[in-house]
Order: sequence, then C-alpha cells, then structure tokens
Amino acid sequence: MEEPTEGAVVIEGGAAAGPFVLVCEHAANAFPARWGDLGLGPAERAAHIAWDPGALGLARGLAARLQAPLIHATTSRLIYDLNRPPQSQGAMAARSEIYTIPGNATLSPEARLERTRALYLPFHAALRGLIAERLALGQNPVVITIHSFTPIWHGEPRAVEFGIIHDADPALARAILTEAQTQTSLDARLNEPYSAADEVTHTLALQATPMGLRNAMLEIRNDLIADETAQEAMAACLASVLRAALARVSATEEAG
Amino acid sequence: MEEPTEGAVVIEGGAAAGPFVLVCEHAANAFPARWGDLGLGPAERAAHIAWDPGALGLARGLAARLQAPLIHATTSRLIYDLNRPPQSQGAMAARSEIYTIPGNATLSPEARLERTRALYLPFHAALRGLIAERLALGQNPVVITIHSFTPIWHGEPRAVEFGIIHDADPALARAILTEAQTQTSLDARLNEPYSAADEVTHTLALQATPMGLRNAMLEIRNDLIADETAQEAMAACLASVLRAALARVSATEEAG
Repeated sequence: MEEPTEGAVVIEGGAAAGPFVLVCEHAANAFPARWGDLGLGPAERAAHIAWDPGALGLARGLAARLQAPLIHATTSRLIYDLNRPPQSQGAMAARSEIYTIPGNATLSPEARLERTRALYLPFHAALRGLIAERLALGQNPVVITIHSFTPIWHGEPRAVEFGIIHDADPALARAILTEAQTQTSLDARLNEPYSAADEVTHTLALQATPMGLRNAMLEIRNDLIADETAQEAMAACLASVLRAALARVSATEEAG
Repeated sequence: MEEPTEGAVVIEGGAAAGPFVLVCEHAANAFPARWGDLGLGPAERAAHIAWDPGALGLARGLAARLQAPLIHATTSRLIYDLNRPPQSQGAMAARSEIYTIPGNATLSPEARLERTRALYLPFHAALRGLIAERLALGQNPVVITIHSFTPIWHGEPRAVEFGIIHDADPALARAILTEAQTQTSLDARLNEPYSAADEVTHTLALQATPMGLRNAMLEIRNDLIADETAQEAMAACLASVLRAALARVSATEEAG
C-alpha cells in the first residue's frame, strides 16, 4: 500500500458545502530537496513547464465563491505530473515543449516507483476520499480541474483564451461553453488547446467518470490570470459560468 | 484522506512476478463486532448473499499457478460491497435476492460514511497502489476479478457455469470465452449471469479502465467450487484458460 507523503497534497475547505470539488494538479512549482531541481535553472523552474501559473489563485477564487473544497499539488509537475498515470512518459517528462529536463532523462524504474508512491498515490487517494465521502453522504459532487496554458507554444501565439475539455461525458463541458459564450467575451472553445486524446483528462477519467459524476477540465490562458487582481476577476466570471452551467445540465436531465 | 482500517484488506504475494493481478471483493463472510451481524442468523451469514462461496479458494489456486498477487476482502459484502461505489444502494444492501438485511434497513448517512472510510477506501487504495506500482516499473498488469454465483436464483436454476463479464473493453473477456469453449466443457457465456449494466464492473471501471489495462470479471457457479478439491481443479483449468487468452489478445494487438 502507498505511504502518504507529508505535504504531498493540500485540501482547503474539505468540509465546504457546495456541489463542486475543485482540483489543481499543477498548482505549484516547488522542487523539494528530496528530488532536487532536476538540473533546471530559475527561469525554467518558473516557466509554464514546471506548473500552471495563475491556476491556484484562480482555483482559490472559485473555491471561495462556490463554497467548494479545493485539492491541490505542492510540488512541480516536472517531478510528477499528477494528471498522468504512472506508465505515461509525461508523468515524469524528459522533455516539455522546447525544454529538456535533465533530471528526468534517465530515470530508473525504481525512481519512477518512488515518485509514484510519494506524489501520485497520496494525491489521488486524497481526492478519491474527498469524493467518496460526499457520495456516501448522498451528495453528487461535480469534479472540476483547473489549469492554465501558455499564450505562446513552440513560438506560435494561441488565440483561444478559455478551453473547456471533457472526458467521456461532454454534457457539462458543453454547458460551460454555452454559458461562457453567453456571459463573457472570452474566446472560449471546446477541447482546445488540448483534448482527451492528448492524455490530459486522466484525473477526470480516474476520479469522476467511474463514479458517473459530472466533470470538466478548465484551461485558462495564463496571461489572463497573471496576478491576483486578474485571478479574482476571472474567478468571479467563471464562478457565475459554472453555476449557470450546472443549473443548465441539471434542468436538461430533469426534463429528459 | 481515508484512514486505513487494520485488516480491511489482505494482499497475498504482492511481489509476485506474473502479469495478472487478482481481486476477490467478496472473499469473506466475517461480520466484525464493530458492525455486528446486521440482524442475520447463521444460515444467512453463510449464504451467497454474504459472500461468494468458493471464490477465495479458487483465487488462491489461480494466484499460485499464475504467480499473481491476490488482493481480497476480509469482511462480508453485506457490510460493504467493495464492487459498488459509495452512492450505490447495493454498497450496503437492505435487500439481496429473497433476503432482507435488517442492519442495513435504516442506515444513516454517517453510518454509510463510516463504512466507506473503513472498508471501501482502504481496499481500493491498496489495489490502486498494487497496480500503480507495477505501472511505474514499466509492467502492464491485467486485472481479473473473481466471483461466484448461486446456482438457484429466485427459485430458478441457472444453466450457465462460467460467466465472463467485461467493462468498456471486451477484448480479453472474449478471448477468455473462446479459450474456455476450446479447452473446457464448461457452459461458458459472455456477460452472464450479470453484465456491466447490472453495476457489477465497478472495480474494473475504477481500477483498470482508466489506466487502459486489460481486464475481465470471472463468475463461477458456486456448486462447481464447493470444496478445496473442486477449487483446485477449477483453478488448474482456468489458469490455463487465462494464460492462453492473454497470449491470444497480445498476439492480436501485435498483429494489428
């Protein structure tokens, strides 16, 4: 059985009463001494390859407005990307966009196992517990993962501002898109800049789909949530979108 | 995060080197003092509603022949059915076939939560760990759940002897059916006496499907594995079937 690692995961507002459960797998760019800096300099450790800049601030703003529990990572995605299964090359990526990650270039199976036990298993056990406990109490939580993406990718600017990505069940993602197009002026698109085919819905596939829970992954262009003021403004906007989207799918299901 | 319960789950042969991971959610008919006998008499606690008679012996026979780790339950499925999610009525069933379960008739949300924490979460965290660790080491485990079913159901005899049930991916289940029909004289059928539509593939959906792992659920009629001799004979037979079925799907994938 896995041995939970002190501090591998943080739950904020675990008893919050709202319908959403918020997840931020790429919240942090910390490189604990146990694993070192992977041979990266300060600029690389601050770049989008190491974390999703702005995502945690946005997630906290949403959590406050939606009375939602928030679970988030405490270490860089380059040590272990919690949105990837252990067998994925991307779980401990040796290359990300235009960067190479020296400390991940020649990882032994034992090193992969050690990071899996230290980071992946405790994070997903904690999230599983958060969800299962709500289910046992007769609640029906909605799982939302919160990410940010870089405005420039391989030298090309991205026009999309707000991506909504779904796993097996597209209903909530489509409702979020509709509400975003109605309520905001964001360039919102379904399954951009990534989709489930890019392996990015692992958390949803692992935690929400098998339980039959509504879910979606949100991707916000990180230049739009670069500071706390921007994060708060975006949180106010997206909290309203999420509330309306959930009401929309609930109404559709009741009608159906 | 869940607090693992001492003895809620047993792993035998956790370091075994074969490709299969065996799971027996209904291995036991123990009623620990913590939850009591749920108002059931000795005959009911020994009946198929409380566990899958013969399944653990068969699973152990398979584990020995396949060099497989085996994870199994230690308490009755009537206290918590580990093959059901916490929101399912069947997780803590108030009724099973022709029996009522007094101790489950008026469970409070808090009691459901307590059993979920004590039994469901530790079992599935342990299985997740077993699987994830193999994945981190570059292995590709095959998840097989082992069950038995009663020969008489609501007064009607069942002709099927060996049911092979699949979740989203039918490939391995179909190969097992083909091998069972070739190698044995068992009345083997796909998705009988239950199917995924009956909620019986929760463990597969939770543990195997999100990881992209081959998987199947085996259901053996319990009169065919009523004692150790019969369990050993069935294990010898089904170990050969499983080995050949895995070779068959592996060959098909390589050819495709």
